[in-house]
Amino acid sequence: MELISGFSKLSKEDKIKWIAQQLGDSSDELLEQFSSFWHQDPHQQKVFDEFSENTLTNYYMPFGVVPNVILNGETFVVPMTIEESSVVAAASKAAKFWQTRGGFHSEIISTKKIGQVHFLWKGDYNKMYCVFDEAKEQMLKDTADITKNMRQRGGGILDIELLDMRHLDDNYYQIKATFDTCDSMGANFINSCLEQFAKTLQSWLASKEMFTDSERDVTIIMCILSNYTPECLVKTWVECPIEDLENTNDLGGLDAKTFAFKFKKAIEIAKNDVYRATTHNKGIFNGIDAVVLATGNDFRAVEACGHTYAARSGQYRSLSDCSLENGIFKFWLEMPIAVGTVGGLTSLHPLSKRSLEMLGNPSAPKLMQIISTLGLAQNFGAIKSLTTTGIQKGHMKMHLLNILRTFEATEKEVKQAVEYFKNNTVSFNAVREFLATVRTHV
Amino acid sequence: MELISGFSKLSKEDKIKWIAQQLGDSSDELLEQFSSFWHQDPHQQKVFDEFSENTLTNYYMPFGVVPNVILNGETFVVPMTIEESSVVAAASKAAKFWQTRGGFHSEIISTKKIGQVHFLWKGDYNKMYCVFDEAKEQMLKDTADITKNMRQRGGGILDIELLDMRHLDDNYYQIKATFDTCDSMGANFINSCLEQFAKTLQSWLASKEMFTDSERDVTIIMCILSNYTPECLVKTWVECPIEDLENTNDLGGLDAKTFAFKFKKAIEIAKNDVYRATTHNKGIFNGIDAVVLATGNDFRAVEACGHTYAARSGQYRSLSDCSLENGIFKFWLEMPIAVGTVGGLTSLHPLSKRSLEMLGNPSAPKLMQIISTLGLAQNFGAIKSLTTTGIQKGHMKMHLLNILRTFEATEKEVKQAVEYFKNNTVSFNAVREFLATVRTHV
Repeated sequence: MELISGFSKLSKEDKIKWIAQQLGDSSDELLEQFSSFWHQDPHQQKVFDEFSENTLTNYYMPFGVVPNVILNGETFVVPMTIEESSVVAAASKAAKFWQTRGGFHSEIISTKKIGQVHFLWKGDYNKMYCVFDEAKEQMLKDTADITKNMRQRGGGILDIELLDMRHLDDNYYQIKATFDTCDSMGANFINSCLEQFAKTLQSWLASKEMFTDSERDVTIIMCILSNYTPECLVKTWVECPIEDLENTNDLGGLDAKTFAFKFKKAIEIAKNDVYRATTHNKGIFNGIDAVVLATGNDFRAVEACGHTYAARSGQYRSLSDCSLENGIFKFWLEMPIAVGTVGGLTSLHPLSKRSLEMLGNPSAPKLMQIISTLGLAQNFGAIKSLTTTGIQKGHMKMHLLNILRTFEATEKEVKQAVEYFKNNTVSFNAVREFLATVRTHV
Repeated sequence: MELISGFSKLSKEDKIKWIAQQLGDSSDELLEQFSSFWHQDPHQQKVFDEFSENTLTNYYMPFGVVPNVILNGETFVVPMTIEESSVVAAASKAAKFWQTRGGFHSEIISTKKIGQVHFLWKGDYNKMYCVFDEAKEQMLKDTADITKNMRQRGGGILDIELLDMRHLDDNYYQIKATFDTCDSMGANFINSCLEQFAKTLQSWLASKEMFTDSERDVTIIMCILSNYTPECLVKTWVECPIEDLENTNDLGGLDAKTFAFKFKKAIEIAKNDVYRATTHNKGIFNGIDAVVLATGNDFRAVEACGHTYAARSGQYRSLSDCSLENGIFKFWLEMPIAVGTVGGLTSLHPLSKRSLEMLGNPSAPKLMQIISTLGLAQNFGAIKSLTTTGIQKGHMKMHLLNILRTFEATEKEVKQAVEYFKNNTVSFNAVREFLATVRTHV
């Protein structure tokens, strides 16, 4: 590829043409392909184009649903956006399993968001600390315009603290602020407040005659929300008598007690072994991210927060836990999930708007509960498969269709293959060889 | 919503109709909306439908590109799938910045993948340990069919170890295996090998007369790859003399030395403060996930691995680092990234196939380098904005368009707003009020 100047200023069509030329595609094949993924309504397509920059087309992600999710007594059909096979199937199976065992339960523990102004200051900390309430008042005043709307909705700035961070670096301090952003994720709101806090801090220090000349200077390093929100926390669980886990079709021949024992062992391993914990939590995020994406939220933010929380003890561990006490099987997931149901893409992306409608237009805390439920459902399904039949059997059958597509199998060949692989191990190679045999004998 | 039995067996249209009925939509509005997102080619749409289960339509994610990415002397146009505004713009700006300063450099440190068989065994560990090589031989033999294709490509099983894990739990052991999966991500390959290892372990123990009756039993808890691959590692960096950072248009008025100082402080804060580290790494993953998604790889796997790696010291820390030594600014990112360029969706999703073509159909290691380059570019852009002008100015201008869409602004109103907000602070409320004023005065 060549270097190019002014690419972002080209029209979408010209951007595509330039890339086609770079790829040595002299026909309009690339433009044809990319435009085949555009929405038929140009107005709608423009909305997608403006979500990001240098956009050429839309990347399709499968949008599916998990029905029969009973959460706190209410039934949901939960939308999921995910490209990985087996995830929706496993969550659906888990939802069905718990449907007759009391469903999922969830409670919100807290909903606080966090922002930080990082700064360097050469002065007498105690002197600033004693009068910081005055700065705080001024910060609240100076952000009154920014926070007006949020305050009307019952949220806003909860607290503004001055933190001495000199144990980490010379002259390093923080303003750490907590926020209630109601039903919005609140990133822009928090960042706008923080940048104002920094300006106010600068002018307040400059104006205070009690400070020495050098104390009236401050170096703002940066102002930014934290995606780590350990106090925006939701707990979700399932429970039933151990004997009620019995389900002869589903536990690969294990009795309820053996299944419960193995399940708990698998959770303990994920709590103690870092290699297993990573994959265990990855499975939880399969369920979580799919709902986060479908509802127009930011999965990178939810991932970063959840994984940091998983490492809070000093070792990276499982986010879910399990107990077998007094004959009761209990399985739960406690983690921070900061999402919104207003603002951002939630109403701009037509399918996110629709997803939220399918969920009954929930508040942000209710969406936290729904998202964590799908995380728990997904995790339950994965651990159940792993500790009973193994995951490859189910997974490879589903993946079989994908492999067959790679070899451009006909519908007839697909049928033959599905039949054949009912009793044979699926692998890329085995499918290749099967097709070679079938095709030779035509 | 109601409970439903047999949902997965309904046709796509009947699934949509059932949901429409549940939403009280008696017209065909839902079907019309969902079908407007289907690909016009039914054969192509079927491929998307089969990626996952209970699929109803496609969720559109913006697909854009970052041009002018110079990596190890070669120029790339990198595809990104991301719904967040500013990410592609920031990466493009960073690519341009480094274009005249030597570009990006990257090297692969290692490419090993990992899998585990977790099992409980009541026996004499040393006895098993001494003859485990025999079991290992048998495992290699029993997986010969599964590994045949991979061995032909130069990969396969690298090692099989027996680990004593009794420090974590009574009778707990692992078979920990390492793999070279060449250009594939290798999840299915590894899981298939592991499930065979478990079967082989069981039959081998049962057949060995040197073991007591109870030693000839083993409880397999689970067999599964680990997404934590600290030995599938790539390091990417940029460097230049500090004075070459000078760029008067771009550093918000800071001179090169002050900018370098603040930049390094920001990185140090992200190394030492967990709240900042989370958001810092979230920004890195904005760049990483966008390329992971565009190339048909699994972003949950890459996220889980990277965040675990960030917590490896016992505290969650920044994945990137910075030094200012001998007048040289150096900024680097070292992290594990396990991805594939064959198998999975890489060639099944037409846009992933195209993405890989745009990248010159790279090997998996080369894709690791490209992905980490975009992570580093993204991080550089974010820290540069944060430590100079702040992110809200640029970000809110871009977000302005999204807010205007929420209020269904006309093209004329959009133009007026863009002009007005050149000199005024963008907020949801400010846009609302601006539009109210404009609309009153029509």
